[in-house]
Amino acid sequence: MTTNTQTKELISGLRTLFEPESLAMIGASNNPAKWGFRILNNIVGGGFQGRIYPVNINPDSPEILGLKVYRRMADLPEVPDIAVIVVPSRAVPQVMRDCAAKGIKVAVVVTAGFSEVGGGGEKLQQEIVAIARSAGIRFVGPNSFGIINPHHSLYSQMPPLFPPPGPFSIISQSGNIIGTISRLLIERAYGCSKCVSIGNQADLCAEDYLEFFSQDTQIKVILCYIEGFKDGVRFLNLAKETSKKKPIILLKAGETAAGARAAKSHTASLAGSDAILDAMCRQAGVVRVRTLDDLVDTAIAFLRQPLPRGRRVGIVTAGGGWGVLAADACDRLGLDVVTLPPEVIDELDSFMPAWWNRGNPVDLVAGGGRDAILRAIEILMRCPVVDGVIMLGLMPALDPAQMDRAFNNQQIRRDMVREVIVEATGVLFDQLNDLSDRYHKPVIVASEPIAFGAQFARKIAHAIADRNTVCYEMPHQAAAVFAGLVQYSEYRNQEQ
Amino acid sequence: MTTNTQTKELISGLRTLFEPESLAMIGASNNPAKWGFRILNNIVGGGFQGRIYPVNINPDSPEILGLKVYRRMADLPEVPDIAVIVVPSRAVPQVMRDCAAKGIKVAVVVTAGFSEVGGGGEKLQQEIVAIARSAGIRFVGPNSFGIINPHHSLYSQMPPLFPPPGPFSIISQSGNIIGTISRLLIERAYGCSKCVSIGNQADLCAEDYLEFFSQDTQIKVILCYIEGFKDGVRFLNLAKETSKKKPIILLKAGETAAGARAAKSHTASLAGSDAILDAMCRQAGVVRVRTLDDLVDTAIAFLRQPLPRGRRVGIVTAGGGWGVLAADACDRLGLDVVTLPPEVIDELDSFMPAWWNRGNPVDLVAGGGRDAILRAIEILMRCPVVDGVIMLGLMPALDPAQMDRAFNNQQIRRDMVREVIVEATGVLFDQLNDLSDRYHKPVIVASEPIAFGAQFARKIAHAIADRNTVCYEMPHQAAAVFAGLVQYSEYRNQEQ
Repeated sequence: MTTNTQTKELISGLRTLFEPESLAMIGASNNPAKWGFRILNNIVGGGFQGRIYPVNINPDSPEILGLKVYRRMADLPEVPDIAVIVVPSRAVPQVMRDCAAKGIKVAVVVTAGFSEVGGGGEKLQQEIVAIARSAGIRFVGPNSFGIINPHHSLYSQMPPLFPPPGPFSIISQSGNIIGTISRLLIERAYGCSKCVSIGNQADLCAEDYLEFFSQDTQIKVILCYIEGFKDGVRFLNLAKETSKKKPIILLKAGETAAGARAAKSHTASLAGSDAILDAMCRQAGVVRVRTLDDLVDTAIAFLRQPLPRGRRVGIVTAGGGWGVLAADACDRLGLDVVTLPPEVIDELDSFMPAWWNRGNPVDLVAGGGRDAILRAIEILMRCPVVDGVIMLGLMPALDPAQMDRAFNNQQIRRDMVREVIVEATGVLFDQLNDLSDRYHKPVIVASEPIAFGAQFARKIAHAIADRNTVCYEMPHQAAAVFAGLVQYSEYRNQEQ
Repeated sequence: MTTNTQTKELISGLRTLFEPESLAMIGASNNPAKWGFRILNNIVGGGFQGRIYPVNINPDSPEILGLKVYRRMADLPEVPDIAVIVVPSRAVPQVMRDCAAKGIKVAVVVTAGFSEVGGGGEKLQQEIVAIARSAGIRFVGPNSFGIINPHHSLYSQMPPLFPPPGPFSIISQSGNIIGTISRLLIERAYGCSKCVSIGNQADLCAEDYLEFFSQDTQIKVILCYIEGFKDGVRFLNLAKETSKKKPIILLKAGETAAGARAAKSHTASLAGSDAILDAMCRQAGVVRVRTLDDLVDTAIAFLRQPLPRGRRVGIVTAGGGWGVLAADACDRLGLDVVTLPPEVIDELDSFMPAWWNRGNPVDLVAGGGRDAILRAIEILMRCPVVDGVIMLGLMPALDPAQMDRAFNNQQIRRDMVREVIVEATGVLFDQLNDLSDRYHKPVIVASEPIAFGAQFARKIAHAIADRNTVCYEMPHQAAAVFAGLVQYSEYRNQEQ
């Protein structure tokens, strides 16, 4: 554990990292094939409002993207808050010395070729750590794709992705995976708060970022892709406290023998025992997932869904097969597709078509339309043995009164149908959110996409994201998300 | 087992079902909310070339979609090859008698409310079976979403989906899931051959369709979604023979206790023991999958990928994290992320950047560009301890000579970049296919989508599908597909 002074210094350094007023890009280039151009291009294109100083000892152009290039750190008119370093690995020690001489306190070392390649790289990494330590410089990386903070219009990273400001922070030990996670969030119409590609963690490590993110009230959910912890005990102690305030979703890679070997050569990480980690995560309230989709899907569910009190799921489905697949997925994840009490069956019986299946999943195929769907969901929500509902199939639940506007003399008015469906989708999710709030239980929705082209899909995604929720694409995803909510809920209950 | 005469009659009946010259739609309606309109609309909109006879004893319109409506089967000017029945369940027995009187030999009963609802529905089902048997009528369903055969321009089904002609046939016990599978194929730019939503299997059952599809040379891969077998032993005996000619991919739902209960109320299916089925599938060469994505992903891989001789995988990745996740996924699926022999490491060493990881996955991050990627893949393909390659990351492998056309004075020409990337993608997959053919080993590709909008994504998908292959979206999907190829390969090897 760190002392209070150390913690304060750490937090102050990380605030500077994510909210700099000025920035030096060392190794800046005018060649679009080079990282020294691409990252600078993302910083400029992302609309960074602070001062930007490209630095290159042997510049390929006097100006890059309209910015004056400096040959030496010493020439800069001020001490920049952070330095982003993309020079070749052998030149990094000297750059770190220049940063120290200039008085820089925070850096991002993008350059690769350090401990992850062993031998000489390992020595080079020790060298830059020693220089930074003696100068009081804290740094990200090396072997990092960079950092972003959309709330600060800061996109100092390799992938040309610009998620809008949002409630999710990412701690990723892989650069390309921070790109994947950002993309998955953008596709679902969500944005990010502070995100960091942590690289080899030679100085700043996952535990440091977690400590900072834990205290940041802008951040609602923390997403982690980790290949190996630098200080697993500290991580879990921090996680225990953080999980009392906000969820941490963890994809721990390198879990298998083959994965562990790959992780070692990727970020020099030593993977621990999977089973031990699993037990420790449960103790610390960390929600473990196995795929990148589950990481993002589960994170979004935490935004507004109430936590289920137990593992008992009610399923309302517009298609029988989807219901069976959801029940299978729930069962495999240890959820209980609960037997509905006779009085609930009777209540459903009062309005469902004669041929309904009288069980859980409640299969609404060809029966009753939208009102029946919402009534069935409310009856399950009210039922004391149901801890939350999975709803499958969006289209039949859209308000026919709204939908009718898109019909004229039994012909679909193609010009209106898109607009009407987007509106009706918004109305539906408002109603589902109301039910969630009223009964303090989650409603998780999965559905076939409503297929009217990509631009339309984007509008639907936004209408749903505006309600702080999401529509999953497959029944097994809804089950995985429900299981994630249960896992976190069990921790919170036990902590109370 | 059926006798030869029975088999011949069955095959002849199923040929009529999927290639009718004329069709009666009994229960046709002019109301877009009704199934009797929607299915007819799909048949007409799908471009069916045969004669179509809407029938309704109490029609809501003298014409539907420009077709004359008949009140009675007896009034039809000919005996239609097939009858599609969508009248309410209580009316189905009389319709079946009318079909018998008219001389109809093949029917599709879309109507639900039979054995899946128990009690009276079960009796009603027995009644229509008895009528059909005594009249020599074979029928699909009841509780079916219909059938399609794009090679015959026949789209006699509920979902408004029109997959083009293609090599995949679907046998699905769920109507909504046949829709999902079709959509997933369409999204990947693939089409279908004969597909059937089998419903309650009161007469024709999964085994019958399998027997027919086994002999149909247009069909290259058979995709099955099954909740319960009517005659599991016959299915597996047929599968044993079919698997010698073409792969069967099976998603068996209702595997868990909760799923089995749901399946019973969905299609009156009794699920068997999961472990027993697993063993039997292995004996019969049936490839089992757990999700709808895996069902479709695995099916497409069989189109042109050579079967791997063993479980040893080489991975070439453009991103370290993706490599770790792929290695984890392979390991979990029992694949061997094989240690590369020293001579292979040396050969890679001759052109890889100094900092490369010297292991499997071969991580090409920031190293060498396209030529290095293709050389690395070829070296792994040639290596005798590697049975196939997983390649991760598309963009860095596109031909820079082609890509350069989209650059002008270091500025991207936005008007050309899409076209150039589509072309370069096609060239890349041609080269990967060449490598596959030359070394008789599969190359499975997964990549972040190249993000330039949906219309562009469509063109990329088509460029790849034109080469009979596919690009998966996540590393674990590539691993699952490789495992599916191995499973089938082991059966074929043991049968030789």
